[in-house]
Amino acid sequence: MNFRNFKLPGFVTYGKGSFQKVDEILSHKRVNNLPVIFFVDDFFKNNANFLGTIPLRGNDQVIFIDVTHEPKTTYVDELKDSLTAQFGEVSGIVGIGGGSVLDITKAVSLMMKNPGSSADYQGWDLVKYAGVYKMGIPSISGTGAEVSRTCVLTGPTRKLGMNSDFTPFDQILLDPLLLKTVPEQQRFYTGMDCYIHCIESLNGTYLNAFSRMYGEKALDLCEEIFLHKDEWDDDSDEKLMMASYAGGMSIAYSQVGVAHAVSYGLSYLLGTKHGIGNCIVFDKLAHYYPDGVLKFKEMISKNKIEIPKNLTQSLTEDQFNKMISISLGMEPLWENAIGKNWKSTIDHKTLRELYGQF
Amino acid sequence: MNFRNFKLPGFVTYGKGSFQKVDEILSHKRVNNLPVIFFVDDFFKNNANFLGTIPLRGNDQVIFIDVTHEPKTTYVDELKDSLTAQFGEVSGIVGIGGGSVLDITKAVSLMMKNPGSSADYQGWDLVKYAGVYKMGIPSISGTGAEVSRTCVLTGPTRKLGMNSDFTPFDQILLDPLLLKTVPEQQRFYTGMDCYIHCIESLNGTYLNAFSRMYGEKALDLCEEIFLHKDEWDDDSDEKLMMASYAGGMSIAYSQVGVAHAVSYGLSYLLGTKHGIGNCIVFDKLAHYYPDGVLKFKEMISKNKIEIPKNLTQSLTEDQFNKMISISLGMEPLWENAIGKNWKSTIDHKTLRELYGQF
Repeated sequence: MNFRNFKLPGFVTYGKGSFQKVDEILSHKRVNNLPVIFFVDDFFKNNANFLGTIPLRGNDQVIFIDVTHEPKTTYVDELKDSLTAQFGEVSGIVGIGGGSVLDITKAVSLMMKNPGSSADYQGWDLVKYAGVYKMGIPSISGTGAEVSRTCVLTGPTRKLGMNSDFTPFDQILLDPLLLKTVPEQQRFYTGMDCYIHCIESLNGTYLNAFSRMYGEKALDLCEEIFLHKDEWDDDSDEKLMMASYAGGMSIAYSQVGVAHAVSYGLSYLLGTKHGIGNCIVFDKLAHYYPDGVLKFKEMISKNKIEIPKNLTQSLTEDQFNKMISISLGMEPLWENAIGKNWKSTIDHKTLRELYGQF
Repeated sequence: MNFRNFKLPGFVTYGKGSFQKVDEILSHKRVNNLPVIFFVDDFFKNNANFLGTIPLRGNDQVIFIDVTHEPKTTYVDELKDSLTAQFGEVSGIVGIGGGSVLDITKAVSLMMKNPGSSADYQGWDLVKYAGVYKMGIPSISGTGAEVSRTCVLTGPTRKLGMNSDFTPFDQILLDPLLLKTVPEQQRFYTGMDCYIHCIESLNGTYLNAFSRMYGEKALDLCEEIFLHKDEWDDDSDEKLMMASYAGGMSIAYSQVGVAHAVSYGLSYLLGTKHGIGNCIVFDKLAHYYPDGVLKFKEMISKNKIEIPKNLTQSLTEDQFNKMISISLGMEPLWENAIGKNWKSTIDHKTLRELYGQF
């Protein structure tokens, strides 16, 4: 039997206003006057108030990260090349944003110390050397990227993370005040990423008591804020931040399932963003997760969300085949969702029917 | 405002039977043929079956740890001196046992790289250098020592831990099968340590959403296994193991409270073991934790436990004064429990009355 040995993030700071502690934490991590680079979601580009609170010292630099698309290996490589050209080396990278910014931060930090292209490291335990110091600061919560052992990248041939013991952050800082600026719609889709993690983890064959503890708690928190509360308040932000952390811990020790396996195909072909793609797919998964989908539909309705429709109506069969092939390649996800014999029920035909519904 | 930056254990492995993975994990940690030392609770001394599963290589050694008394700085120093005399250096130390063994493992690991006596490091952030590699494997669950940033030691002048960023384990391994041998009574007292952590954390002024998430989940698990289940089974062991972990995470980011502040005094003077001391004290704390104590009394009754009585009846006033002085010294615990103005309600007289009830 295989028991995973899961690397936890090094340090965690939690608290409203804890962002002000970043300067002090970094003061112990600055090496030889090399700069700290702040990767900041370009959503904050015109938010002078927020940008003014980033504790820049010496030749530190803010780089705005374009999250129009899911993170690509080419983008990671460009960022690495540009940092290397400008500075040679850096003391560390601090990522401030949602799952995409956090994943790009992890990837570039690793690439600062590993030769070649990030595409060479898509897979399990291919990374050879620890990267530079990296800190993750979520400003949108739900993905669990702050605690995960991977950073999902779209490469030349696949969408797959650099999954390694070197990938988790050295430091995460969870300041619920940073969530205040998130647009409602985006908050919902990213929050649903967490909700779906919980459903997939709790209904998976890989489940154990460790994953269950985190998954149940994250699920309680998601239901409380998206279903049972009358309106969104500060307490909701705090709970969503912790739900994301706990949901991430839950899948770290189990695995995601059908929604992720299928939405990766959509996202690879159409560039559909991860949170929204998961929702589009999960909405049609009543056969696999009956209770989870029922509650999901209540959340959709209570939060007045319109799930995008008709994404696949005009696709060619070649395009369907590409999505199906990407999805069937996600073996651990299917094995977790269905069991070791998943190939007896999940085949080209099943997936063609499913993809046709989006 | 002060935001703690909490060091997490490096790696975590969870699973029934995961103890068999220890050999593989250690294979990456052995340095220059230096031995790995296994600190094993002397409860296992005559358990040849279990001892046979410890993966000894080369000149590795098992040392049985005497847990008759709460861990003392003198015992830690002796263990360090004897390892240094015999081996010079070691690759690492693996602790297998309850809170005492885990705390001794953390302390000796640190002392292998820090000069002087462990008593010199009782306090906050006094440890100067990382210790040798250390792995914690609980065989009794409840204390949360597997995740804590301290190792509580009784020294020449106080009972206080070596609380530092170097103290958490590099690796924890949680195998619920190891809990099978725990005697019922001991399981209850150690489990109540966890229950009391939750009550103290959830009712403390330091509480935040991070601590609350862990505290609420650990409390749910404790109530399920000690109150709502008809009998103890494998599932109970799994849940207790996770409750201990989550309870430890909850206080790591908040603080314990009245029961711990008072029981430290008992334990310092009379050598009362931590779990049982907490129960003796908590039983009399209805004024501070009314709901928690009510449920505690239900658990006591359902599990047919007799809390020891008449411990303090024949003590001298000097002895009471010593306990009271130890307890009043636990400032952060009182501040968490009562608030910044705790000195206006907690004084010599209050504590004299309380200690007189045990």
